[in-house]
Amino acid sequence: MQPIQFTSETSANGVLERTFTLDDVTGVLFSPASGSDSAPLILMGHGGGLHKKAPGLTARAHQAVRTDGFVVASIDAPGHGDRPRNERDRRWVAELTRARAAGESLAPIVAEFNSSLAERAIPEWRATIDALQMLPEIGAEAPIGYSGMTLASTIGIPLVSVESRITAAVFGGVYAYRELLDAARRITVPIEFLLPWDDTELDRESGLAMFDAFASKDKVLHAFPGGHHQVPTDGRIDTRFFARHLGRVGARSA
Amino acid sequence: MQPIQFTSETSANGVLERTFTLDDVTGVLFSPASGSDSAPLILMGHGGGLHKKAPGLTARAHQAVRTDGFVVASIDAPGHGDRPRNERDRRWVAELTRARAAGESLAPIVAEFNSSLAERAIPEWRATIDALQMLPEIGAEAPIGYSGMTLASTIGIPLVSVESRITAAVFGGVYAYRELLDAARRITVPIEFLLPWDDTELDRESGLAMFDAFASKDKVLHAFPGGHHQVPTDGRIDTRFFARHLGRVGARSA
Repeated sequence: MQPIQFTSETSANGVLERTFTLDDVTGVLFSPASGSDSAPLILMGHGGGLHKKAPGLTARAHQAVRTDGFVVASIDAPGHGDRPRNERDRRWVAELTRARAAGESLAPIVAEFNSSLAERAIPEWRATIDALQMLPEIGAEAPIGYSGMTLASTIGIPLVSVESRITAAVFGGVYAYRELLDAARRITVPIEFLLPWDDTELDRESGLAMFDAFASKDKVLHAFPGGHHQVPTDGRIDTRFFARHLGRVGARSA
Repeated sequence: MQPIQFTSETSANGVLERTFTLDDVTGVLFSPASGSDSAPLILMGHGGGLHKKAPGLTARAHQAVRTDGFVVASIDAPGHGDRPRNERDRRWVAELTRARAAGESLAPIVAEFNSSLAERAIPEWRATIDALQMLPEIGAEAPIGYSGMTLASTIGIPLVSVESRITAAVFGGVYAYRELLDAARRITVPIEFLLPWDDTELDRESGLAMFDAFASKDKVLHAFPGGHHQVPTDGRIDTRFFARHLGRVGARSA
């Protein structure tokens, strides 16, 4: 098993950011600058076309580290961020650009493209978990959650359906295509599902069908006005989900 | 203007419960036993066939008093609790009982019955607010919220659409009939809307149409498995809604 290679380190406002590589995967680990010991680990995925340190993701990661003492790991999806994009992925991106300009539905292209990305990303996330658990500040006992919308849900839903180390997850903003619905039906851990009510690129029915599919008894849907680029940060959808399900560092050490 | 007449008083676990009458309306006021001074006031409505001290309502009221120092008022809907039921209401109840036994949709009867109850209950709630504001421990400055599902939403939605003193509200579990949708379209205050995902007596589409109708920019839908008798109390839908919008006593006195 490959160990993680840390490649850079910065620290600001109590949050340590360390970029890393694992084979050809590039990632970043956010953790309390004061140190952490078996703190809960949140895996955060980024949206399509974005990367491991996208501003929204970084803001959520910093908040999780500062508010709850969590450790957050984020990796670039295949062909995203610091990772080269292959020829087939480039064609999909071109098809998406064309369909968006023509006002056509993106659903069929997104389903095909994201399925292919998910197939490649799932073993990468599992290898990342293996390698993170080898770090002394994380270890094999840290509870693990997964969080991410759009592309990160397309990857995360099949990931969580096969990865029993992930015991709570936040998803949202995804097309309900068949493989994804099938994966959701195999998920039984607590789920929070976010539905942007006015997303121009996603239809409500698709989101509602996804929420319906999860086998989890403990699940909740939060819907809010606006698109998936406008997820509210005013507390409206903040139920302290990971703090309730993975425990806080303070609570765990008691 | 009539003043409130308190008719009984009990205290347990830090919560003072005082029943009252206002003309022919019967109600109860829950408040901190340690006293309150312009604390936020939550108006809580009960579901159809229930009453001002229904167990679920009482539990939520106690929690609001104990956690946030709020004052909670609840009144019996016309023909409910300690109030006599008139002949026409008795016929509606009999029709509901018959339709439920026959497995027919309750929607048309509920819409008609609840509309009639709402028409009578709205002036009663407004008179109750007037009278509560005359109490020295509440006063005219206390921020006011409204909370209640099913019948309490049928009453609350038109009430909030005309009553500007109510500045935040929680609704849910209602049939989207025309007058109710029209009232929702006039509401602009922050709204939290609860949608029981598997309610056998309410359809999802109706709930989604209601959520869609609110003109409020600050609104959120929380959907969860189960029926409207199983609203989760595990924190899944707890976003500290009233604490965020009406302020906490502690925060207000700072």
